[in-house]
Amino acid sequence: MKEKTLCHAGELFLIEQLQKNFQYNLKSLVAGIGDDAAVIKYGKDYLLFTTDMMLEGVHFDLHYITPYQLGFKLISVNVSDIYAMGGTPMYALLNIALRKKTETSFFNMLFKGIKHALSYYKTILIGGDISAVRKDIYLSATIIGSTTKPILRSGAKEGDKIYVTGYLGESACGLEILKKKGMRVKPSNNLLKRHLMPAARNPDKLKGIATSMIDISDGLLIDLTRLCDESKVGARIYEEKIPVSPQMRKTALSLGLSPLNLAMTGGEDYELLFTAPHNKKIKAIYIGDIVKSERVIIDKLGFKKAFEPKGYQHF
Amino acid sequence: MKEKTLCHAGELFLIEQLQKNFQYNLKSLVAGIGDDAAVIKYGKDYLLFTTDMMLEGVHFDLHYITPYQLGFKLISVNVSDIYAMGGTPMYALLNIALRKKTETSFFNMLFKGIKHALSYYKTILIGGDISAVRKDIYLSATIIGSTTKPILRSGAKEGDKIYVTGYLGESACGLEILKKKGMRVKPSNNLLKRHLMPAARNPDKLKGIATSMIDISDGLLIDLTRLCDESKVGARIYEEKIPVSPQMRKTALSLGLSPLNLAMTGGEDYELLFTAPHNKKIKAIYIGDIVKSERVIIDKLGFKKAFEPKGYQHF
Repeated sequence: MKEKTLCHAGELFLIEQLQKNFQYNLKSLVAGIGDDAAVIKYGKDYLLFTTDMMLEGVHFDLHYITPYQLGFKLISVNVSDIYAMGGTPMYALLNIALRKKTETSFFNMLFKGIKHALSYYKTILIGGDISAVRKDIYLSATIIGSTTKPILRSGAKEGDKIYVTGYLGESACGLEILKKKGMRVKPSNNLLKRHLMPAARNPDKLKGIATSMIDISDGLLIDLTRLCDESKVGARIYEEKIPVSPQMRKTALSLGLSPLNLAMTGGEDYELLFTAPHNKKIKAIYIGDIVKSERVIIDKLGFKKAFEPKGYQHF
Repeated sequence: MKEKTLCHAGELFLIEQLQKNFQYNLKSLVAGIGDDAAVIKYGKDYLLFTTDMMLEGVHFDLHYITPYQLGFKLISVNVSDIYAMGGTPMYALLNIALRKKTETSFFNMLFKGIKHALSYYKTILIGGDISAVRKDIYLSATIIGSTTKPILRSGAKEGDKIYVTGYLGESACGLEILKKKGMRVKPSNNLLKRHLMPAARNPDKLKGIATSMIDISDGLLIDLTRLCDESKVGARIYEEKIPVSPQMRKTALSLGLSPLNLAMTGGEDYELLFTAPHNKKIKAIYIGDIVKSERVIIDKLGFKKAFEPKGYQHF
């Protein structure tokens, strides 16, 4: 019998395996594998730790993104995970592996983008590692943050309302434009900017209000599934409530793509998806409700269909 | 004029650029870029943060190392940086990027090695990221540690003695055996074990004694240069004091290599290199003295020659 490959096992299965294999019974460990960031009780505060990779040919294509944008994005995607815990980023570590023949101007622009983002998020670079690679460029960042009250994925309760902080599918639509144009373009178009230089959403206004939270990095449906899994609840969302900008709708249609599909399964928007008690006044976009167990989308005519965790999976 | 590449700029120059570019005037930041780990004063303790990569084709070759050994080594090389600050490792984050067609048994053995090492160093896995790659496997770890009194690279004083914790050149000699055999071999031979499954050296006995410390990851001469640079001092080391094991000497000679050269420039031994006041009793191997500014090796006949930071450089 042929052995199973990672591709057949699937990313969600692999992470589940790791969660089972690396379980610890420690009071100080509030959240480990399976949330946006790890949460450690330290003194009277909570420390937050997260790390995310960006690999050439998987997460980015140098035909589309400039080194400056890449540096900025590397920091944003990592800060977004700290924000998704209701945290404040403080320190960053980097791993940067580039080709020997890369020009120093690439290195300089990459770090200019990193520096811009770090200063934007008031985060300081404290260390890292640089290396040569044979072929594909590899980047990762680790961000250390803190919070007085972490917002976990696991806090959603039946009856809570579900919200997002902004338009969805913008980044995925931006990527489609780039693929069509097949080259680097100035991000004058907002959809391109959302893809090339995303900004993470500051959660400060949601502290003490949100019962659970996650950032939308892989797509609404897959990230909502993760939140529901951790909270052991279901969700009912309304198709017509999913926020789609007029610009995205128009662009998607002109590219022959479904705007709603982009909004529900497109990754890298870095909007926050959160839940809050139904009686709270919230300045965000209401898209549905937490229910006991069913996970469904209701269309405009009231028809219900179950949703699957569709979105970006590595394996 | 052709633009400079990273290879021409060199690793030490690139890191120096980053040190200049990311300088912060923060009381809590005790050490940042340029030490084995970053040191942050947090409450009454110090938190330590380090991250190191292992890239296929650069740091390892799957013809020589098994996934189990690779997982173990990934943790050891990172823990070694925490130990080099006089710290205790606490938490780990991982970035693991593998090919889609990799068999799940590879994934399982890699994590078995990681788990073994984490338990050996009493460190717990709290998070990370997994991804697919197009070609070369990429691994990195971030370790968070703590200490009540960090031992920096910058604390060496004129008159201090220089010590190492064990035999040098063992790992480099082990790699030469593997290259010659051209295949995976059981690490029954100690030199192979030192290369394939290195153990980091616990610094507990050196706390309150060592004035400066670094781990030997890239080679004695390059790492001693780093320590001298940060401490703004010179060093005089004695050729005949450099610890070379009988086994390494014999193996190196049989391979037509200079044992002394391996010991001075071979990387990945993960022994600690430290300085201590000359009047302290130290259980380690004395190899020389910190002096004002000259950086020299004295040979058996008393001849002096200047040493260069020879060892592993990525660019």
